[in-house]
Formats: sequence, C-alpha cells, structure tokens
Amino acid sequence: MQLKIRKKAKHKSRKPGLSPGELSGFDHTNESEHAEISLIRFSETEIEECKVASVDDMVVPTADDKQVYWYNIDGVNNPNQLLQIEKKYNLHPLLMEDVASAEQRPKMDDYDNCLFLTAKMIRADEASESIYAEQVSFVVFKNLIISFQEKNKVGDVFDPNRERLRLNKGKMRRMGSDYLLYSLLDTIVDHYFVIMEYVGDKLEIIEQEMLSNPSPEKLKEIYKFRRELIYLRKSVWPLREVIVKLERDECCMITEEVKPFLRDVYDHTVQVIETVESIRDILSGIVDVYLSSVSNRMNSVMKVLTIISTIFMPLAFITGLYGMNFDNMPELHNPDGYYVVIGVCVCIAVGMLVYFQRKKWL
Amino acid sequence: MQLKIRKKAKHKSRKPGLSPGELSGFDHTNESEHAEISLIRFSETEIEECKVASVDDMVVPTADDKQVYWYNIDGVNNPNQLLQIEKKYNLHPLLMEDVASAEQRPKMDDYDNCLFLTAKMIRADEASESIYAEQVSFVVFKNLIISFQEKNKVGDVFDPNRERLRLNKGKMRRMGSDYLLYSLLDTIVDHYFVIMEYVGDKLEIIEQEMLSNPSPEKLKEIYKFRRELIYLRKSVWPLREVIVKLERDECCMITEEVKPFLRDVYDHTVQVIETVESIRDILSGIVDVYLSSVSNRMNSVMKVLTIISTIFMPLAFITGLYGMNFDNMPELHNPDGYYVVIGVCVCIAVGMLVYFQRKKWL
Amino acid sequence: MQLKIRKKAKHKSRKPGLSPGELSGFDHTNESEHAEISLIRFSETEIEECKVASVDDMVVPTADDKQVYWYNIDGVNNPNQLLQIEKKYNLHPLLMEDVASAEQRPKMDDYDNCLFLTAKMIRADEASESIYAEQVSFVVFKNLIISFQEKNKVGDVFDPNRERLRLNKGKMRRMGSDYLLYSLLDTIVDHYFVIMEYVGDKLEIIEQEMLSNPSPEKLKEIYKFRRELIYLRKSVWPLREVIVKLERDECCMITEEVKPFLRDVYDHTVQVIETVESIRDILSGIVDVYLSSVSNRMNSVMKVLTIISTIFMPLAFITGLYGMNFDNMPELHNPDGYYVVIGVCVCIAVGMLVYFQRKKWL
Amino acid sequence: MQLKIRKKAKHKSRKPGLSPGELSGFDHTNESEHAEISLIRFSETEIEECKVASVDDMVVPTADDKQVYWYNIDGVNNPNQLLQIEKKYNLHPLLMEDVASAEQRPKMDDYDNCLFLTAKMIRADEASESIYAEQVSFVVFKNLIISFQEKNKVGDVFDPNRERLRLNKGKMRRMGSDYLLYSLLDTIVDHYFVIMEYVGDKLEIIEQEMLSNPSPEKLKEIYKFRRELIYLRKSVWPLREVIVKLERDECCMITEEVKPFLRDVYDHTVQVIETVESIRDILSGIVDVYLSSVSNRMNSVMKVLTIISTIFMPLAFITGLYGMNFDNMPELHNPDGYYVVIGVCVCIAVGMLVYFQRKKWL
Amino acid sequence: MQLKIRKKAKHKSRKPGLSPGELSGFDHTNESEHAEISLIRFSETEIEECKVASVDDMVVPTADDKQVYWYNIDGVNNPNQLLQIEKKYNLHPLLMEDVASAEQRPKMDDYDNCLFLTAKMIRADEASESIYAEQVSFVVFKNLIISFQEKNKVGDVFDPNRERLRLNKGKMRRMGSDYLLYSLLDTIVDHYFVIMEYVGDKLEIIEQEMLSNPSPEKLKEIYKFRRELIYLRKSVWPLREVIVKLERDECCMITEEVKPFLRDVYDHTVQVIETVESIRDILSGIVDVYLSSVSNRMNSVMKVLTIISTIFMPLAFITGLYGMNFDNMPELHNPDGYYVVIGVCVCIAVGMLVYFQRKKWL
Repeated sequence: MQLKIRKKAKHKSRKPGLSPGELSGFDHTNESEHAEISLIRFSETEIEECKVASVDDMVVPTADDKQVYWYNIDGVNNPNQLLQIEKKYNLHPLLMEDVASAEQRPKMDDYDNCLFLTAKMIRADEASESIYAEQVSFVVFKNLIISFQEKNKVGDVFDPNRERLRLNKGKMRRMGSDYLLYSLLDTIVDHYFVIMEYVGDKLEIIEQEMLSNPSPEKLKEIYKFRRELIYLRKSVWPLREVIVKLERDECCMITEEVKPFLRDVYDHTVQVIETVESIRDILSGIVDVYLSSVSNRMNSVMKVLTIISTIFMPLAFITGLYGMNFDNMPELHNPDGYYVVIGVCVCIAVGMLVYFQRKKWL
Repeated sequence: MQLKIRKKAKHKSRKPGLSPGELSGFDHTNESEHAEISLIRFSETEIEECKVASVDDMVVPTADDKQVYWYNIDGVNNPNQLLQIEKKYNLHPLLMEDVASAEQRPKMDDYDNCLFLTAKMIRADEASESIYAEQVSFVVFKNLIISFQEKNKVGDVFDPNRERLRLNKGKMRRMGSDYLLYSLLDTIVDHYFVIMEYVGDKLEIIEQEMLSNPSPEKLKEIYKFRRELIYLRKSVWPLREVIVKLERDECCMITEEVKPFLRDVYDHTVQVIETVESIRDILSGIVDVYLSSVSNRMNSVMKVLTIISTIFMPLAFITGLYGMNFDNMPELHNPDGYYVVIGVCVCIAVGMLVYFQRKKWL
Repeated sequence: MQLKIRKKAKHKSRKPGLSPGELSGFDHTNESEHAEISLIRFSETEIEECKVASVDDMVVPTADDKQVYWYNIDGVNNPNQLLQIEKKYNLHPLLMEDVASAEQRPKMDDYDNCLFLTAKMIRADEASESIYAEQVSFVVFKNLIISFQEKNKVGDVFDPNRERLRLNKGKMRRMGSDYLLYSLLDTIVDHYFVIMEYVGDKLEIIEQEMLSNPSPEKLKEIYKFRRELIYLRKSVWPLREVIVKLERDECCMITEEVKPFLRDVYDHTVQVIETVESIRDILSGIVDVYLSSVSNRMNSVMKVLTIISTIFMPLAFITGLYGMNFDNMPELHNPDGYYVVIGVCVCIAVGMLVYFQRKKWL
Repeated sequence: MQLKIRKKAKHKSRKPGLSPGELSGFDHTNESEHAEISLIRFSETEIEECKVASVDDMVVPTADDKQVYWYNIDGVNNPNQLLQIEKKYNLHPLLMEDVASAEQRPKMDDYDNCLFLTAKMIRADEASESIYAEQVSFVVFKNLIISFQEKNKVGDVFDPNRERLRLNKGKMRRMGSDYLLYSLLDTIVDHYFVIMEYVGDKLEIIEQEMLSNPSPEKLKEIYKFRRELIYLRKSVWPLREVIVKLERDECCMITEEVKPFLRDVYDHTVQVIETVESIRDILSGIVDVYLSSVSNRMNSVMKVLTIISTIFMPLAFITGLYGMNFDNMPELHNPDGYYVVIGVCVCIAVGMLVYFQRKKWL
Repeated sequence: MQLKIRKKAKHKSRKPGLSPGELSGFDHTNESEHAEISLIRFSETEIEECKVASVDDMVVPTADDKQVYWYNIDGVNNPNQLLQIEKKYNLHPLLMEDVASAEQRPKMDDYDNCLFLTAKMIRADEASESIYAEQVSFVVFKNLIISFQEKNKVGDVFDPNRERLRLNKGKMRRMGSDYLLYSLLDTIVDHYFVIMEYVGDKLEIIEQEMLSNPSPEKLKEIYKFRRELIYLRKSVWPLREVIVKLERDECCMITEEVKPFLRDVYDHTVQVIETVESIRDILSGIVDVYLSSVSNRMNSVMKVLTIISTIFMPLAFITGLYGMNFDNMPELHNPDGYYVVIGVCVCIAVGMLVYFQRKKWL
C-alpha cells in the first residue's frame, strides 16, 4: 500500500494586516458552501441526535443543564456562519481565526470561558491508498463541545465514538464534556497508530528492497518517505505539548477523573513520535547502506575493466610488435615464433589472473 | 520568483570603547539625512494623523491622557534627532544605541518606564523579485508607541494597520498602546508567512528539478537557498523569545486582555520556525538524492566504458594476432580462417553481452 | 553469538474508537488460552507458594495483612480473565488496556489505589543465539504485587528472586511490596547488562573484521546491529524516566527505605543507555573507516588501470606506427630499426614506472 | 587579511597534587619578570593616574571611600607579587590560581568579599594580520577593581575606557566599580565584533573562491578556519553564562542601575555566538558544494574517457580486422574496400556521438 | 607518546538476581588476595601514618574526635573484607556493591550517615606509553574518609596529597574530611589535564600527518583516537554531575568553606569535557579533509588515464588504418604519406594537450 499525502488545497497564508478576528484564508467564491451542523445531546439516561439547520437553531446550554451537547460543524469555509457562532457563544475572535485557518499548528488555548484545541486528523483511505490530513478544532465548555472539521465526502473518524454514545458503552454517557473531548482525542491518536502501521510496513518493504536490490529509484522513494515522516512529525509533535497543557489546565474544565485518561493519550502520542524518530534513524542507516552498495558496485565494475585492460593491453602490445613491418625481425622467420608468442600471451594472461586472485579482485 | 536578500549596507560594528549611549555605527557624512516623523493620535472616538516637523514638536502625553499616540520615525541615521528623542522621553542610553544599530538581534528589554523591542521586518518586493530585511524598533509607553524604521522608498508594512485605525475596524481604537504593539507585531509576523510561501514555492521548484534533472549548478542554488534559510532563522528565532518575555512582562505595560493575542503571534512565530527547520531537513534530503544521483550516473558511465572495453579488447587482440607477420602461421593460409575469426569475434561479443545482462549491467 | 530480536508477533494496533478499557489488540481465536496464575505469599517468618486455579481464588489482602502477596500472571491474551482481575482489584480500565497491549512503551502511572508500571524484559537465550523482548507489567498495592507476563516456554527471569524469597536471603522477606518491586526491576535491569555484554562482544568482532577485512556484507551487518541498538534504546530509555517518577512517587507506596535502592537501579539504567549511545558513536566511526577503505581500494584499482594504460598505450602506438604499410618508411629498412623500437619501448615503460614511483603510485 | 591565532605559549597544565593556592603553571626562570602596576583613581570630580612601584604601595580603600580605584596589573608570571596581592586584599587562594593560569575558561566566582571574573580578550593586530587571545581577570570590590593581564608589547584594549574616564565622558565617573566593570567587559565584547567582521570577510572570500574555483588546498583552509571558529566559540561561549551569573549576583556588588547595561553585553555575546554558529553552518554547506563539485568533475573526466574509448575501440577493431594477413580476405581486393571502411568508421563515430548527445553526456 | 587504554580485566556484569549487597563481579579464586589497608590520622598539630593489619584493627572515630582519619584500602576483590567494613561502619549494602564493581559509572550517593562517591582515576605511565583507568571510591563521614582503590603495582596518584599532609602545607591539616575529599578529587582532575596534554599532542601529530601526507592507515588511527575520546568522555562527563550534587549536598557533610573549592574542581571538569568535545569536532574536520583528499587523488589519477587514452586512442586508430591490407589504398603509395601521418599524429597530440590545458586538467 502506498502512502500519499493529499493536501486539500494549497495553503493560503492570511492576508497580512487583517485585524485579528477578521476571517480570511479561504476562497470567497464558494462562500455559498454551507457547513453542516449536527448535534448529539446526551445524558446518562437519554440521547438525542439531530441535524441543525442553521446557527440560529443552536442552543447555548445553561450552566445547570445536566446534558452534554456535542455540535459537530462540517465545513469551515463559510465566514458568516463562523462569525454567527462566535457571537452566539461569545468566543474570542482569535479562536475563530484559528478554526478557519487550514494550516494551523496543533495548539491549545485556555480562554476565560472555554478551552480551544486543534489537532490533525490523519486517516488512511484503503481504497485510494492515500492519506488524508485534516484539521479538527474543538471548543470545549462545561457541558458543550463544538467540533469543527473540513468538509469532505469520507466523513470523519468519530463514528465509533457516536456508536458508543448510542449504545451507552463505556462511561461516556455518565461523564461530562471533558471525557468526551478525551474520547475524541483518543480516537484521533488511535488513528495515528494505524498510520504508523502503514509506515512500518513501508519501511520493511523499502528495507528489504534496498538491502537485496538497491536502485536509485528507491532512493527517491526513501526521500519521499522521509518527507512524509517530516510532515507526520510536524503534525504529531505539537500535540504532545497540547495534551500536557490540557492536563495542567487550571481553568477547571478538565476534571481530576479525566486526567489519567489524558495521560494515556499523552503516552500514545509520545510513542508515535518516538516511532517516527526511530524510523528516520533507520532510514538514514538504509541510505548509508545504499550509498556504500553503489560505491561498491562501482568498485566491482572498475575491477572488471582493470582486469580486462591489464590482461589484454600487454597482449595487444606483443601482437602489435610482431605486426611491424621491419625488414630485419629475426623472430618472424623462426618457424616456432608464432607458437612461442601464443605461449607467452597465455602465460601473461594466466599470470595476471593469478596476481588478481591474490589481490582478491576475483 | 527568485529570493534574494538585499542588505541595506555592510554592517559596521560599533567602534569598540565608545561609551554606552554614544551613537556610532552610521556614516556621519549623511548626517544631514533627516528622519521623517509622523503621528497618529487616536481614541475610540477621534483620530488625527499628521507629519511632525521636528522632535521639538513631539508631545509627551500625560499619564491621564486617554488618547494613544503612535509616533513613527523613518530613518535612524541622524544621531542628533535620536539624542533629542532620548532626552525628551527620558529613554535609557542603551535603548537608543540599539535603535541606531542596524544589525541588532531581535530583543525585548524591560526598562523602568517603558518597554523596548526590536524585530526584523522581512518583505518581498514582487517587482524586483527580492526580499528586504529591515529592522523596526518599538518604544512602548502606557499611551504612546514610538516606532523606528530605516528610511526607504517602499514605505513600511503597517499601512493596513493605519487603515484599520482610520476606519475604526476591529477593536484597535478602543484599546491601548499594548494592543497597537500587538497589532504591529502581528503584521510583521504575517509577512513572514508570505516569505514562507515564496520559500515553499522555491523548495518545490528545486525539489522537482533535482529529482528529474539534477545538475551541479542546482546544488549551488540549494547552497544559496540554505544560506537564506539560515538568515531567516536568525531573524525569526529570537522573536519567539521576545514574545515570551513580552507575555510574561511584569512592568504592567501589557494588559491581561492583550496576552491571548500575543500568544497567537507566538504560535505563528513557532510555526514559521518549524517550517524553516522542516525545509532545511527536506533540503538535506534533496542533497542526498542529488549526490547519489551523481555517483549513480558515474556508475552508468563506468559501465558503458567497461562493457565497450571488455568486448573490444579481446577482439583487438585476436585481430592483432593475425596481423602478425610470422612466416609460419598455418591459420593464415586456411581459406576459411578469416570467416572463423569473424565468427569467433561475434561469439565473444555476444558472450560478453549475455554475461553483462546476467550481471544486470544492461 | 549472534544477536537476533525475536518479536513474539506482529504488533496489532488497537482498533481506533474502542472505548478505553475495552480490551482489543489480541487474537480472539485463541481466547481459550488460559493464563497461569501463581502466588507467592510471604512474611518474615513464613512463605507459601501455590498455583491459583482461577481469578476467583485470588485473594484481596486487607490493609492490615502483614503478609506480602505476589501474584504472577503468565499470559495476557485472555480478556475475560483480565476483566475479572480488573473488577476484583478495582483497577482503572486504562491499566488493563496497557497490560494487554504487547507494544506498550515502558511507563509508570500513579493511580489512586495503586502504582502501575511496565518494562521490557530483554533476555538472551544462549541455545538459539537469540534475544527475547517481553513486556512485564506490575500492579503494586501496599502488600500486593500482581505481575503480568506474556506466556512462553522459557519461563521468566525472576527465578533468582523466588529463590531468595524461599531461602530468606537478603532482606526481601522483611520488607514490603515496594522492595519486592525494586528487586524485580533490579533483576530486569541486571539482564540488560548481560545483553550489553553480548552487544559489546559483537561490536568487538565487527570492529576487528571491519578494520582488517572490510566487506559490503559486513556493512549490512552493522546496519542490522544499529537497528537492534535503536530497538534496545527504545526499550531502555523510557525506563529511566519511569524510575525517576517512581522515586518521586507521592502516593506513599514507595517507602523512604527503598528509595536508595531505586536510585541504584536508576544509575544502572543510565549506564546501559550511555553504553548504547557510545556503541552507536563507535559504529558510525567504523562505517566511516569502511567507506574510506572502499574509496581507497577503488583508488588503488584505478591506479593499476592507469599505470597499465599509460605504459602500454604509447607502446601500442609505436608498434602500430611501424605496422603501417606505407611504401616509403625508411626506418623499416634499417637493419637495427626493430631493436631500436624495442629499446624505445623499454625506455618508455621504465620512464613511466619511474614517474609513477615519484608520484607515489607504486 | 588572514586570521591567525597566536598562542602566547604552550599551555602548561598545573602540576597535579599542588595544594590549592600554590601557584604553578609558569616558568620560574623568568620569575624576575616584574608586573607593572598602574592605578587610576577617580571620583566624579577628580581623577588621578599613576604607576605603582610595588604591591606594598597599593592602597586598600576603606568602605566609605567615595573614590573608585582601578589597579591594572600587567603580567601574571610573578608568583611573589600575586601572593602579596592575595594577602593584602585577603583574596581566596583559588582566585589567584585562576589569575595565574593562562588557559582558564571564562568564569565568574562570587566570593564573600569580592567578585572574580575572567574573560578572553581577542584582538586583531592589523599589521601582522594575526589575532591575539589574552586572558583578563577582574577582582571587583565595592570601590576597587584589580584587573590582571598578560604582559605584552601592544598594550591592552582599555585605552578608550581610560580616555573616557579622563575626559569625564558618559557617566563612568559618576558610577561605582560595577559600572567600570561593565564598561571594561563591554569593550572586550565590542572587540569580538571586530573579529566577527574579519571572520565574516574571510567567509565571503572562501565562499566566492569555493563556488567559482574549488580546489583541495582551499578545503584545508576551510578546515583551519573551522578550527579557529571552534577556538573562538570556546572563548566566547562561557562568557554568556558568566554575564548571566553576574546579573543574578546576590552579593550586592552589582547595583540595579548597572544590570540593564549587563543585559546589553549579554545580548552582544549571544549575537557573537549565533554568528559563529551560522558561519559553521554555512561552512559545512560550502564543503558539501565542494565535495559535490569534485565528484562532478570526476564525472565529466570519466565521460570524456568513455566517449573517446567508445568511439575509438570499435574503430580500432575494424582497422585491426583488415590488418590481418589471411590469404583469403575478399574485401581486401575490393577496390572500394578502403573507402567503405572509412565510411563505416565515420558512421560509427557519428552514431556514437549522436547516442551520447541523446544521453546528455555532451 | 602513544595513548593506549589498558583495561584491568574484562568487565564481568553482576550475576542477575543477586540480592543487593551480595557481592559478585570478581573472581572468587583469588579471594585470598588480601587488600592492604593504610591509615593516615591527622589533626592540625599531629599526624600519624601506619599500615592496618586487618579490618578488626580499623577504628570507628567518635563524633567528637577532633582528628581526621583517612583509611585507604588497596584492593576491592576480597568480599569478606568488604563485608566486614560494611558491618563495622554500618554502610548501606548497595554502597559496597558499587565499591566492588569495577565498571561503575562515576556517581555520588547521599546516604543518611555518609556520602559515597566514585570517580575514574586516569593516569599516564610514561614508561609503557599507556594509560591506566582505575576506579576510586570514597566513603565520607564527618571525620573519616575511606578510599577504595584497585590493587596495582604503580601505586596511586595521591602521594602529593600525603606529602602535603606530612609537611603541613596548605590548610589540609586544619580542615575536616570534606576538604580532604576535595583535595583528593582535585588531584584526580589535575591528572585529567595531564591526559588532555597527551591527547592534544596526539591531535597535533595526527593533524599534521593528515594534512601533509594522508593515508588510510592514519584514518584507522583517528578511529582509535576517537574511541579513546569516547571512553574519556564517558569517564569524565558524569563527574560533572557528581560535583554539582556534592556542592548542593544537604546532609551537612560539606561545609560552606569547602564549596568554593568544589566549584573550582567543577570548572576544571567542565574544561576537560569541553576540550574533549572540541577535539572530537576537530577530528571530524580532519576526516573530511582526508576523505576529500582521497577523492581528489582519485580525480588526478583519472585525469592521467583520460589524457593518455584521449591522446593515444585516435593515434592508434590512424596507425591501424594504414596498417590495413587493402589493395587499393592510394595514400600508402604517396612517398610523403608516412610523414604526413606522423605530422597528423603530432597535431592531434598537441591539440589534445592544448585542450586539456584549457580545461585545467594539466
């Protein structure tokens, strides 16, 4: 299976000088693209799923609402909607800017009324043998999570979480929004492990090919593989920091009960990072082996050339010698001369071969 | 688009042993160069823009002045003016030394009465396909910012900020000098992203060229590219530290409200730095691929040489053999001798080719 | 003795989206595989060893039980059993997930009622000349340790600990579960030293071979050796952190008396890590020497070729010259011509050899 | 201008086992070498300069003396004098050991009654195109600085400081010994910038030469340049730490007023270090370019050889063929045979050239 | 002088599973080897030196004993003696384990009643041109130091310390066991500087040889040199940490008065480490120069080959051409043909040489 990184679109940097909170970075031509909003509302005993038509229909839960609301917004290209949401939930303007920017580095911000968190969702699509890297953002309130995703056909990775909510499996329904957040992050990180398996398999293939049958084409493949790893690391590395900050969070959003779970996600993230580093280390070893195999083959090519030249050049000299047309060349008139020359040639050839065998060139 | 770094002038190191506060490091011949001073004074309701003729006309706002003053000084080569400003605003002598030094490392100093901060403003001029790196310094008081720039024709990057002030867009007019500072820093960092895009495009071109058609000239280009990246990193890297210090500032100049915005600028700076590091990483991978492609082509050149030699040297020996002039060479008188020799030659050639094909040299 | 890393089975990543505590990652077909449970119960005066038939027969010691219980579970592939144990001892669901995952990074978690710790047990089997890397997990209560191991034929490394318990050697019988934990960790780390000896011997062999008789095959061996070192480091490195955390433990599980012992294990772990790093450093030096020896041999091959060509090409020209069939070639009719040509040839050959000797090519 | 590092003398390590405070490390034969002592005593209103004949004539200022004393000792090879000074000012024995050792790493020690500080004074002598690295030590009391320098003909770098004291420029005369210390350190660091300019110029020359006309001799030059940079870094790097410690000094020797000035020196030191690191980075890029240019030229040499061989070897075979002396070679009797052969030869040559052009070898 | 590392014996790892305090790691066959115990007991006024026959005769000084006892144990292979000492002085079992292990990493442990510290004593034996690395351990009580050394013929490095004690030089006799400890550590570190001088001299020789006359044998020497440096660094690096911990010691063993002296030892250790790092850095530069000189010489070899081939191959073709036996070759009958051919050959040769000179190959 081949690993490709499909970027959604070329990154458009923010227009310099925009005031913070002004949303740019997306094409206003398809502003018409309307984000889909879906809601899952659950308590320990009840669960309700529905589509929400517009931002106006979204609910701001009161502080003493015992239910947990999870709004999932598919599509972050509609600035109007985003601004409406910003207003409704009284979000910081920078927060929405980060949501709208597709190339945001994973980060966690601790605002007065909410937590904000972005991560990269990396998924493998087995059909097209490619990898999707999408950005997911979470805004976390006491009993509310709003998740923002880029719109795409394949859907998201959170279906198992939804299923568990529906079936009331595990303790998700009994816990608050912090546990839901953990659960979603956990799913994202679990997908990193799937990618790690692809990457590991690929490493094994490359390793085997390079050690048995090295070729320059494969070096280019290694180069592309390394690039993917650089990309992966850039996506995963900051998540580590994010989770550390989340665990140390002082704004009381994350309860003590959820912290061991976050530590677990942290451990997984570190494991992914270490694996990426190990693979990079191994790859550079493979490149070393390849380069030495190239110079080694060069060596053996040169040896063949040298052996051939060293044998035949003296022979050519001898035949040239007796091809000269001097009047007075007594050997030419010796009836055995020809056979002696052939004998000498054979001796030279054999002698050279013995010499090369001693020098371990054969 | 080509990336060039245009240095304004050769860096002149400070004459050793000057007392701190003595301003050197610029050419006194064009001391006549007069810096242009412009003022923007705004409160939430009013805004006034004007040119200021001389330092004497600059205002020292009182502590209870509700307006924010932004003096922008274009040109830092006139020591008299700088000394006048130093006196007027009671600035630390070292501060003015840093303002005047064009090769200052980005830094932030926390003086008793004010904050001092320098950064590199990196801009791309699309017309000349080059990049300008200029130094900007900010002196920040409670309700006053003095910004110092090098004088040049293209102006500065702060026009969008001025526009927003005029149009009262965003909350700039409602906030103090700290928000203005943030807003100016944000604009500078936003421009780094523009540069990053150039750099990214350049990387892509180099990558494509190197993988499809490697040449030594392109390696020199990579070398120059790496040099530019080293320069970029040196300009951006310290800014990270500067903003961390700014956020932790204890002299009460930066209000709590502005800190999340600074964190945002910080995140952007880190992102730029990480991108530069990734590109360096990728570049070294490209160099590896290039070097291996060179030794690979060498390999294939050597193979051609060896194949040719290995085939024709034995043949040359045979023809040489029957070109000898011995009296007694029975084969020469065999009427089929010539055809046999040709046959043997063909056999040797074919045999060699088969041998090379088996060795996968063909 | 050859060093091989035998992985038990291919790592199966956790199915994404499972709720935490849901145990996956093993093959449900051999779910029938029943883990063996054995108990050692000891106090200073008494010791009792027995097999435990099922989880139901396991005892939850009361807080004032003066005995120490050590349950050892061989086999972590039976989810039912694990869940029973989880329930019985009121363990955190994440804990059991980590026990069941065979590719867990060494870690230490501090739960409310217990400590959890995993480490890699690396053993050398002298018979098969291979190395086993197994995961061991410990759940530590006040007077109870449950250790989880993968099931295998060779047994575990803890027999000496059991023997000491039986013979009441050292102070193990007088101390609590924390000292038992230390003692088990110490045994694991002592085995790292055994591996380090293998690794050191191997390095010495590789070094000697590479310096005396370098070959490309050996470079592949070095590559594999480096890979093993990367694996070793990955297994040992996190243990360092684990023990630091253990020593700083605040949940009162580790008594002050045991901490110096843990510091000792820490020192050993650091020593193993430093040795691995040194070996990596030395290996890269060997690779340098090898690569330079390759290019050096190439050099000497090229010299032979060049010497041969440089001597015989001019000679071939001369013989060719007098093999031409021009009517008017006065030298050909000179009776000494042939001898003069031979003399010239000898002069050229000797002159060339002298030249090469001066250039230190011979 | 060429950069050379002139070491005063070979470093003699301290004789092991000397008791601390015993002064070794210099040649007792020229013990007669007498250090020159000069004094500058100043207050805001007065200044007095004089030579001091012997240590006995040195003054120990009382705590309430409003004047600042600066004793400068030229020459640290006379142990008797040093011991007299040690006694007179009640200095720690280790302090004098450090003063006498010429190869001391820059450091700062905070003794009960005084501060001790050593730094490297690096100066360029334009006449001899070389660089001097000398050690300067400072012992700082409340109103007294004793500076120790190695004796040499060119004098020291502190003349501008003396001049400023004399002319009462800046605030040196108004401030205490801490500001004087800053002022001297600042002068030392300012000289680093001068060296950096030399180094930068040298880099530019090397870069230009290597890119336009690479040669192995220049690689040796780069190697020597890198060595000098290693030396420079070793001299400057610890100074950074020294100044940090100085700023954090708790023994009340450094007043709050002077600390911003120290921060400034710190910034300059960091800038020097970063520049050295950048240059090292750039140099390794140049080496890469050089190495690839070497293998590239090798490539082009090989191509010429291969092209020549590939064209002329088949031709030589053909001519050899028709130089054979078989009785029955019908082509030889064909009147156009010769012209056909020449035609064939031309075809082969042209064909080969076309082939190589297609392969882009021409 | 050549640098060799003579290991006393092959490291035997501790038998896994031994209880802590059980002493293994040495050969029980020569258990008979009796350690020599010598005592120096001193106060400011008195000093007594004697041999102690057995552990039973060793004294445990009372807390108010004003004398300082220094027991030196030569030989750590007798477990019985070690256990007797352990019992007598109530030492922690792990402590004795560390004393007995010959491959202990330098470390410092802070036990309740004493400090424990091990370091590597590296000495050069000028006669045999080799280096000894031995382990020394110190157990430090209020007025007692027990030092453990490996037994050997050359004795130890502490003779100057003993001499100073005897002659009452310096303040050793006036101070407690902490100053004695410092004094012994200082002597050990002073010996590192001696080694550094050897190493520095060796570097200079290698550098000179490599730059003037590079050879593959010398690369192996560099490799061995690097290995020695790795070993040196491993021995010295942890000592830095040890001294930091010693200085921060909280168990009141180290008095405030001694701490500046420890700081001095710390500075020396850092200097040794930095020197080792610099040498490694320089060595890698030398290897670069060597490798490029190899490929450079290859280049020049190839050029000779190519020049010779390029000149003589066309000439050989021409002579071959006129050696053909065609009936109709008009040039052959031209009386000047031969001279024309010779002229053409000369022209080709000269033309080629001019061409190569233009290409700067000559």
